[in-house]
Amino acid sequence: MFKQITIIAPGLLGASLGAAAQARQLADRIVVWARREETREQCRHLAWCDAVYAEVEAAASEAEIVVICAPVEAIPPLARAAAAAMVSGGLITDVGSTKAEICRELVGTLPDGVEFVGSHPMAGSEKSGLEHADPDLFNGRCCLVTPAEGNSESAQRRTEAFWRAVGMDVHALEPTEHDQVVAELSHLPHVAASVLAAYLGRNPDSWRAFAGAGLRDTTRIAAGSVPMWMDILHQNRSAILQSLDGFKKELNAFTKALEAEDETRLREVLESGKSFRRSLDD
Amino acid sequence: MFKQITIIAPGLLGASLGAAAQARQLADRIVVWARREETREQCRHLAWCDAVYAEVEAAASEAEIVVICAPVEAIPPLARAAAAAMVSGGLITDVGSTKAEICRELVGTLPDGVEFVGSHPMAGSEKSGLEHADPDLFNGRCCLVTPAEGNSESAQRRTEAFWRAVGMDVHALEPTEHDQVVAELSHLPHVAASVLAAYLGRNPDSWRAFAGAGLRDTTRIAAGSVPMWMDILHQNRSAILQSLDGFKKELNAFTKALEAEDETRLREVLESGKSFRRSLDD
Repeated sequence: MFKQITIIAPGLLGASLGAAAQARQLADRIVVWARREETREQCRHLAWCDAVYAEVEAAASEAEIVVICAPVEAIPPLARAAAAAMVSGGLITDVGSTKAEICRELVGTLPDGVEFVGSHPMAGSEKSGLEHADPDLFNGRCCLVTPAEGNSESAQRRTEAFWRAVGMDVHALEPTEHDQVVAELSHLPHVAASVLAAYLGRNPDSWRAFAGAGLRDTTRIAAGSVPMWMDILHQNRSAILQSLDGFKKELNAFTKALEAEDETRLREVLESGKSFRRSLDD
Repeated sequence: MFKQITIIAPGLLGASLGAAAQARQLADRIVVWARREETREQCRHLAWCDAVYAEVEAAASEAEIVVICAPVEAIPPLARAAAAAMVSGGLITDVGSTKAEICRELVGTLPDGVEFVGSHPMAGSEKSGLEHADPDLFNGRCCLVTPAEGNSESAQRRTEAFWRAVGMDVHALEPTEHDQVVAELSHLPHVAASVLAAYLGRNPDSWRAFAGAGLRDTTRIAAGSVPMWMDILHQNRSAILQSLDGFKKELNAFTKALEAEDETRLREVLESGKSFRRSLDD
């Protein structure tokens, strides 16, 4: 499908992508750039990795598609460095969890013939790092591709086809709408889980033996990467604040209903929560 | 170990207990009482079930241990009916998620020689009903046994030994402390998950395709039984309100920190949440 795929800054997602691309024979060559020599050394021992570079330009120059797997804040400078080395027709995409700011900086601003289309493969986990890479990580998961004003239809189509080829269920959303959707469906749940876990952490340590499966599920994502989430909180701050406001209102209404023993209202909340959760296939 | 175990009102927990008791050869005879003829008919076809009764007294009269698996509100009357038929030395326990009120009603109030010791095997799931029974449901899970003033050491020891025999990790807690612990570690997470799911359910249905694994984990328990949770909200209302108050304060502090872009404070919350979550073994 591709002569060369270049993966910039492989962590859990990038390394899983390399493994998935090899398993599905998507490229003749899979090339990596990593900032740290330690990571480069690890990559040299991975079966899917054909070459490792210390300079972004060298890694990107012969790529048909470059996938930037760095933290959100680092995506624009890395994309610009890659674009400067690529030939006309080259495509750059990413795996960042927020899209409006990245697309604003990169769509329509790269050298002629090189195009950036934003992507958000929703395949993270509370684990991070190369060592947890899994070629099936993307299988059946949702990927949001975010074409912006200035993107060509052909680049959008190729980006969508790429994620579909690693097994994802692809949807297109405008970047700002994307950020609202993920504030609600991903960032708010993360904040709720983190704040709940932080709150419960104040109880005596001996209570931890009493934790059940429900608590484990509800707080699982609180174990995720702190730097990554600091980045997301910063990039998607206003949409997350809006979601938090809505959630806190719902929580206050529930508290009032419990204080008043308003059984009808309490049952309504439990029923709508149940119905929403059951509408998500497991 | 026992000549006869009687399971009153088998649902997911009761039927799993019957299957576990058979698999571990804990009793010569496992007997069931169920309110509905339909459930009794289902039970007659289960390999672990030796006899099925329509009267509590008949099911309990020859039991050494009776385990009441009914909803919390129904436990005291069922325990009294069972106790009236049991011989001296008989032990009654339960699987209710709240303990203070149940123990207040049942400890020291039953006929001479029959004793009730409260139990809370933390092995629920978002599933319910006989058909999801699993002999390994209790394996490695935590069971809280709640001896109260008036319980004998021997009855406490036998109750603990019973749950240990089906594979559980048993801890003893005073009933009121139990209710505070579960308000924090079980009921608050459930309320947070339900309210979050109810809030997110207001978004367009088309957004559900964008749900990731984090959202699924965080809201999984919101799919639990509504009548069971209505019961718990009622029984443990004041402790849950106290937990909700603490959680909402933590959420407000987080919101303020995000508004002010107070990175130090935001990082602290994410780090303590992560550290609490990682301290729970998966």
